[in-house]
Amino acid sequence: MIAGKFIALEGGEGVGKSTQTRLLADALRARGIEVVVTREPGGTPGAEIIRGLLLGLDGEGWNPRAEALLFAAARSDHVERLIRPALSRGQWVICDRFLDSSRAYQGGGSGLSDEDIGELHRIGSQGLLPDLTLLLEAPPAVVEARLSARDTGGSDRIGGREPAYHARVAQAFAQFAESEPARFARIDAAGSADQAHAAVLSALSPLLSAL
Amino acid sequence: MIAGKFIALEGGEGVGKSTQTRLLADALRARGIEVVVTREPGGTPGAEIIRGLLLGLDGEGWNPRAEALLFAAARSDHVERLIRPALSRGQWVICDRFLDSSRAYQGGGSGLSDEDIGELHRIGSQGLLPDLTLLLEAPPAVVEARLSARDTGGSDRIGGREPAYHARVAQAFAQFAESEPARFARIDAAGSADQAHAAVLSALSPLLSAL
Repeated sequence: MIAGKFIALEGGEGVGKSTQTRLLADALRARGIEVVVTREPGGTPGAEIIRGLLLGLDGEGWNPRAEALLFAAARSDHVERLIRPALSRGQWVICDRFLDSSRAYQGGGSGLSDEDIGELHRIGSQGLLPDLTLLLEAPPAVVEARLSARDTGGSDRIGGREPAYHARVAQAFAQFAESEPARFARIDAAGSADQAHAAVLSALSPLLSAL
Repeated sequence: MIAGKFIALEGGEGVGKSTQTRLLADALRARGIEVVVTREPGGTPGAEIIRGLLLGLDGEGWNPRAEALLFAAARSDHVERLIRPALSRGQWVICDRFLDSSRAYQGGGSGLSDEDIGELHRIGSQGLLPDLTLLLEAPPAVVEARLSARDTGGSDRIGGREPAYHARVAQAFAQFAESEPARFARIDAAGSADQAHAAVLSALSPLLSAL
């Protein structure tokens, strides 16, 4: 059995990660590929407990350093218990957010250095990186309209931060994609879900044609 | 106001850390020093929640890397919210276990490198070290007798590991003390609590005479 592929979807809130994750999983399954769909923070029972600590609105919250450590701990459990075992069984793993969200949110947003986020990932998850990272991007006005159409009853602690924070996050994602072009595919997510899905499949064609 | 002093008590289970913490706090207060007594993992509401995740017996437990990250996250919250503010108010902080427990238990016991534990501490707590670390040591037979006299109704996940694990931990603590003699004082805790307390006060005399 050859190892599966690890695909991460990244981008700010409201760019359509969940929709594209679902559409991609369906498309891969239609090709006979065994797919595991997961998300971060979370994905395993232990990591979901940590997710609850991170996103809950109770208490005073966490300082940026503790927050980054908690994300790395959740990711370590997720990688060890779910992602690596699935890949070694030959399954493909599609993950809604992964390391680059930590780099963008805890690093770009809150001031922890990218080197330190990388250290936490090396220590926690032995540096596992996706085979391909799909960065979904849409203009702020498009994202705003989508988010206000969601009936979520209020955002979580991290989603609820101010617009300048989200702008820094989007800029950070774009910089990661520029500095690692082989690992990233930038997906124009400003149009319809079908248009973005077509771009996702096009970005995956090198991986699919290698099957 | 001059900054307070940070004293950590370290050593394996059953060497008398809790008793010596209490006796030391009383002795310092009798000298008019404001003392904050705390413990790890825990010490703040957030860190106590993480302590519950770490020491509870539910679920499959954590892999050694996730465990080390969770300890570092708890310590980050503890340092930021309790220890540094108390020190900057001029209070003395006495902490039952600190970084060296992570080095001995997650490093020496479970195979994470000491460099990686140090990195987590640098990132999470900006590398804060105690002014003095009191390492309480007693022969295994003495510790066994004390532990079996405790009516705890069973040990927690970490305390419950096998004897060889605890031997590695004791050896790791001894090595830390040897390599950083200025930060450590080794306390013979094989005798009575009063005898150990006298040794603790003797080790503190340089800090106390500087007042």
